[in-house]
Amino acid sequence: MSAKRRVGIVGASGYTGGELLRLLALHPEVEVTVATSREYAGQPITSVHFHLRGFVGNLKFSPLSIDLLLEKCDLVFMSTPAGVSKDLTPKLLEHGLSVIDLSPDFRLKDPRQYEVWYEFEHPAPDLLEKAVYGLPELHREELRSAKLVANPGCNATAALLSLIPAVEAGAIDPEHIAVDVKVGSSEAGMKPSIGTHHPERANVMRPYEASGHRHVAEVEQELRRVAGKEVRVALVPHAVGAVRGALATSHVWLTDGSLDELALWRTYAKRYGNEPFVRIVRGRYPDPKYVIGSNFTDVGVAVEQRLGRAALFAAIDNLMKGAAGQAVQCMNIVLGIDERTGLNYPPLRPV
Amino acid sequence: MSAKRRVGIVGASGYTGGELLRLLALHPEVEVTVATSREYAGQPITSVHFHLRGFVGNLKFSPLSIDLLLEKCDLVFMSTPAGVSKDLTPKLLEHGLSVIDLSPDFRLKDPRQYEVWYEFEHPAPDLLEKAVYGLPELHREELRSAKLVANPGCNATAALLSLIPAVEAGAIDPEHIAVDVKVGSSEAGMKPSIGTHHPERANVMRPYEASGHRHVAEVEQELRRVAGKEVRVALVPHAVGAVRGALATSHVWLTDGSLDELALWRTYAKRYGNEPFVRIVRGRYPDPKYVIGSNFTDVGVAVEQRLGRAALFAAIDNLMKGAAGQAVQCMNIVLGIDERTGLNYPPLRPV
Amino acid sequence: MSAKRRVGIVGASGYTGGELLRLLALHPEVEVTVATSREYAGQPITSVHFHLRGFVGNLKFSPLSIDLLLEKCDLVFMSTPAGVSKDLTPKLLEHGLSVIDLSPDFRLKDPRQYEVWYEFEHPAPDLLEKAVYGLPELHREELRSAKLVANPGCNATAALLSLIPAVEAGAIDPEHIAVDVKVGSSEAGMKPSIGTHHPERANVMRPYEASGHRHVAEVEQELRRVAGKEVRVALVPHAVGAVRGALATSHVWLTDGSLDELALWRTYAKRYGNEPFVRIVRGRYPDPKYVIGSNFTDVGVAVEQRLGRAALFAAIDNLMKGAAGQAVQCMNIVLGIDERTGLNYPPLRPV
Amino acid sequence: MSAKRRVGIVGASGYTGGELLRLLALHPEVEVTVATSREYAGQPITSVHFHLRGFVGNLKFSPLSIDLLLEKCDLVFMSTPAGVSKDLTPKLLEHGLSVIDLSPDFRLKDPRQYEVWYEFEHPAPDLLEKAVYGLPELHREELRSAKLVANPGCNATAALLSLIPAVEAGAIDPEHIAVDVKVGSSEAGMKPSIGTHHPERANVMRPYEASGHRHVAEVEQELRRVAGKEVRVALVPHAVGAVRGALATSHVWLTDGSLDELALWRTYAKRYGNEPFVRIVRGRYPDPKYVIGSNFTDVGVAVEQRLGRAALFAAIDNLMKGAAGQAVQCMNIVLGIDERTGLNYPPLRPV
Repeated sequence: MSAKRRVGIVGASGYTGGELLRLLALHPEVEVTVATSREYAGQPITSVHFHLRGFVGNLKFSPLSIDLLLEKCDLVFMSTPAGVSKDLTPKLLEHGLSVIDLSPDFRLKDPRQYEVWYEFEHPAPDLLEKAVYGLPELHREELRSAKLVANPGCNATAALLSLIPAVEAGAIDPEHIAVDVKVGSSEAGMKPSIGTHHPERANVMRPYEASGHRHVAEVEQELRRVAGKEVRVALVPHAVGAVRGALATSHVWLTDGSLDELALWRTYAKRYGNEPFVRIVRGRYPDPKYVIGSNFTDVGVAVEQRLGRAALFAAIDNLMKGAAGQAVQCMNIVLGIDERTGLNYPPLRPV
Repeated sequence: MSAKRRVGIVGASGYTGGELLRLLALHPEVEVTVATSREYAGQPITSVHFHLRGFVGNLKFSPLSIDLLLEKCDLVFMSTPAGVSKDLTPKLLEHGLSVIDLSPDFRLKDPRQYEVWYEFEHPAPDLLEKAVYGLPELHREELRSAKLVANPGCNATAALLSLIPAVEAGAIDPEHIAVDVKVGSSEAGMKPSIGTHHPERANVMRPYEASGHRHVAEVEQELRRVAGKEVRVALVPHAVGAVRGALATSHVWLTDGSLDELALWRTYAKRYGNEPFVRIVRGRYPDPKYVIGSNFTDVGVAVEQRLGRAALFAAIDNLMKGAAGQAVQCMNIVLGIDERTGLNYPPLRPV
Repeated sequence: MSAKRRVGIVGASGYTGGELLRLLALHPEVEVTVATSREYAGQPITSVHFHLRGFVGNLKFSPLSIDLLLEKCDLVFMSTPAGVSKDLTPKLLEHGLSVIDLSPDFRLKDPRQYEVWYEFEHPAPDLLEKAVYGLPELHREELRSAKLVANPGCNATAALLSLIPAVEAGAIDPEHIAVDVKVGSSEAGMKPSIGTHHPERANVMRPYEASGHRHVAEVEQELRRVAGKEVRVALVPHAVGAVRGALATSHVWLTDGSLDELALWRTYAKRYGNEPFVRIVRGRYPDPKYVIGSNFTDVGVAVEQRLGRAALFAAIDNLMKGAAGQAVQCMNIVLGIDERTGLNYPPLRPV
Repeated sequence: MSAKRRVGIVGASGYTGGELLRLLALHPEVEVTVATSREYAGQPITSVHFHLRGFVGNLKFSPLSIDLLLEKCDLVFMSTPAGVSKDLTPKLLEHGLSVIDLSPDFRLKDPRQYEVWYEFEHPAPDLLEKAVYGLPELHREELRSAKLVANPGCNATAALLSLIPAVEAGAIDPEHIAVDVKVGSSEAGMKPSIGTHHPERANVMRPYEASGHRHVAEVEQELRRVAGKEVRVALVPHAVGAVRGALATSHVWLTDGSLDELALWRTYAKRYGNEPFVRIVRGRYPDPKYVIGSNFTDVGVAVEQRLGRAALFAAIDNLMKGAAGQAVQCMNIVLGIDERTGLNYPPLRPV
């Protein structure tokens, strides 16, 4: 159909790029016209993403070229490391393209925060305000007219979705929030290192960036908006023995010590009741294992009344709701089509 | 040698029983004379623990018999589910045997806590005061003369070892402590269930008992002693993708916001400097993967000064320092021999 | 749409049942009207298959009832243990329903083989000839008019797809074929046992049924048809460390010692060139990891000319091409619709 | 004790080097005086092998220096890639040191085979005859007086131990032997690559070098000696989902079709009855999982009389009996001490 939107992917050779290609191959309203890769330029997509054989036609990786993107695309996904999109995206926007940026380059509103957390001076501070943080559960309305979407980090997505209803309801102490995140190995991307070498990575329970993870900046920013005041978040990620998945366990203290689990659960059920990709779990706790391959977030809560404290859980597939799935969800909203288009698949189980 | 101490194991067919048999087979000062199992009575030890072939002679499982234990043993390990030892242990003590109880039945000092956490009325409250909590890092001196050792739970061991130096130094807020524990599948024991069925258990990041885990009772009890005041502990365990290992990540807030990571690290290094089975980790964070097969605890800290908060880590092999290894360590102290006897093995890596 | 075919699943609470429900939920031409389970009758499908929440409406498990199936279904999948379908299926056929039997009860043509391999006397030997063995790559034409499809076993599917082109071409010695199969844990089904208990099942390389696996009967039967003479197959399955996947490595000796790898590869490429769910792999060898979640079989060959021998590989997702996916593929053919309907998804990677 | 033999390890920073250091740290009769590493020269052993903290004193990695080895060592382990030892070892032997070479450089008797399989011309063909192939189960007597031990490859060790008794007894057809090997990820060594990257390596069932694996050369050489005639071996290794372990499944056809499983089992039991590190398994099949951390080989057989064929199994820990453990076993024999010294540990279970 000629009506299909033409989509480009910058940085298409990694895991997130592969997941975008997989999802978009089945998406009825778009067509991938450009997929760039510095390393694999000129080679077929299937030379890297061989699992997609039969689903990506004869598409080849292109070298990165603004002209090519302008010529062939209406919308571009930036699936690039921190620091690449900040220079490239403004040029695409200038020429009228829409951009969904999976990197952190436009997530923070305050340009100074980039110096603190990412160690660069932001070259396009004016765009930071125009960018919409791509968490539909928070910014659906703004996304409808967005030209630039800053897709959240995977740990940030899990952390935020575990916390939003409680923070919004003023139910928890904003000064004592500890988010303990567990993630699978795919979160580290496709580049081998000793830390991802199978004999070293298998069976781990390994904390990392424990004294300040970059995603904290966007989590605090968004929770501040939700709360209407400062919210301080300790966030410690842990690599654990899985390929896919991210679980946020937010340890919090309740402002009202008499609040019981059912009441808190209802706050979550109400807040997320109409969300197409959030499922409130009861009778068990959320586990990323049971959302693998899907765009769903499973959310749940546990309250220990003895201590007036709670554990708030959000489980996602880090490559789906934590990256490519959420990006497609945002794209759907931006394009004005049903948000679930091309995403409405159940998880794979067991896996 | 006739000088060897005669040792019995009640409940020898499970994983902890197997680990005790493995360790004691190589221990130069003791001899296992009785190993009981209701289910496997009469069968060779190697029918269950076939990996021990060649290391346990012709020993067979016996049915549980007090008379047999009294006749053949000087010291007995109780490797039984909650609620068994409380009735059996008093009889063994009466007749002069020493008991190292790996179950929770004598860990708590306050008999009422058994009603709260374990749902039984304790039949021997007087013994609770006499029992010594078997964490050598806290109770080494009392262990030397102990007749009854209450070996800590594995999650409790990891939680306590992560927290003791900070609590002892008054460095953290005792009202806001959240211990996030990750554990391997062997912690659930040898009995199959849907929760441990491989297709369901592989790759999980699964919270459990999130609104109040039993081990909290012993953790709070011991920290209260250390702090000299009430300490409240939120503890949420998570099953993750590994067979062995337990990691405690204690999320805490510092009483002195100016404390930096090196200063906190020194508090730990000083407190544990002479401990034969605690290693203070720098340059990386503790990961149970690197203590597997050994009795070591790797301990480490991370401080985020921006928030005045820290993450305190302790990594153990749940079947070793979390169960059988610690029990043998306690036995060595009770027997007055070098604490490291039969335990001084490095971890296996990679595994 | 009233035009949707009404489908029932007998034995819907296991992994294969869950996979059928997942696939059929997205299938545009059918509707699941009955899903039976003895154990969970009366409970919502999502009480067991909670990952399917939002995809199976309010459907509940029914007790097994012929009347209900006759009333509500046009076609029934039998997802039952060996020995159940043989009595049930004839009644459904009598009343004009179509049956796709995922159990072994109608796979063998010779009723005496059921006494040898399955230890029962077959009650409906006349139906054995009418049943069509549900491997589309061998029996596509017969499937178009089949009323009873005997869906192949997962190990048999992998073994057959690795061997068919070579046997058909007379390229290998039919007296020396050793098929070494590796499988993930989901092949054992949903019922826990010590063999599938995670601490025992993780990291295994465990042979089983090594002196005669039941699937050999159907493999030899089908290869005999292909070869036009007797073919003897040694088949040894091994449980390995994965949840999904089955790989057949067929060790064979070439009849023409001068045959090289490229020539053999071409035989495979030609034979399978039009197959919608077979992909011939070059440059790497097939690995089930890269077909997970899809209905594809990856096939490949290696020749060692020094010895005039070859290794023939077929990699499948055991729950897809090895069970539910293949059953849906057969159903599509039976229903006269595009064979790929509801199945045309790429694999998930990485996973 | 001054009586301890002084031992060097060339190439001590990899997994095999680490395993040698672990074993020798506990060995009562030797002392490691030199451990070389090009990459880590000057750094403490524990900077790489941090799990060995407390077990290797202050030993540091040295750069490779013949003079240093001559000065400080009586015996040297070569833990180097193919092609390094062939030049270095002759110099050490000249000066009277003993060498245990874990590389393939002295395993083959026929120098021309090095050109075929390893693509180098052997510089010391005279030493090939003097080298003793370090499989004690075949060459114990020669090892007692060996100056140069060529330690077998891990896949070769498993293949040989599965086959020796059957070949020796003339029980199997020497023209149709297919050895299907499964191995854990540690076999690939410590250097990261895309093939060992956790997201790609987890859950695999991946054949490699399927048209001719180098270890075939030594397997055929040794079996030829045992059989007194040519033996042809097809060997196909597969990476599977585990860190440690190697299983050889040898698919063979029996020369006497009436031979039953018990008779074949007895042949194995008799052949290996006095071997300190071979255990004949009955009632289950060998699985490397149950020898992890030990030097044992579990061996077993399955016979399918219908076809007159058998599967012969040998399971090892690839870093122990497949590398470092076997090297220490050989060293013990060379040194004239009890073969089990420093090796007599049971496996770890579960792990």
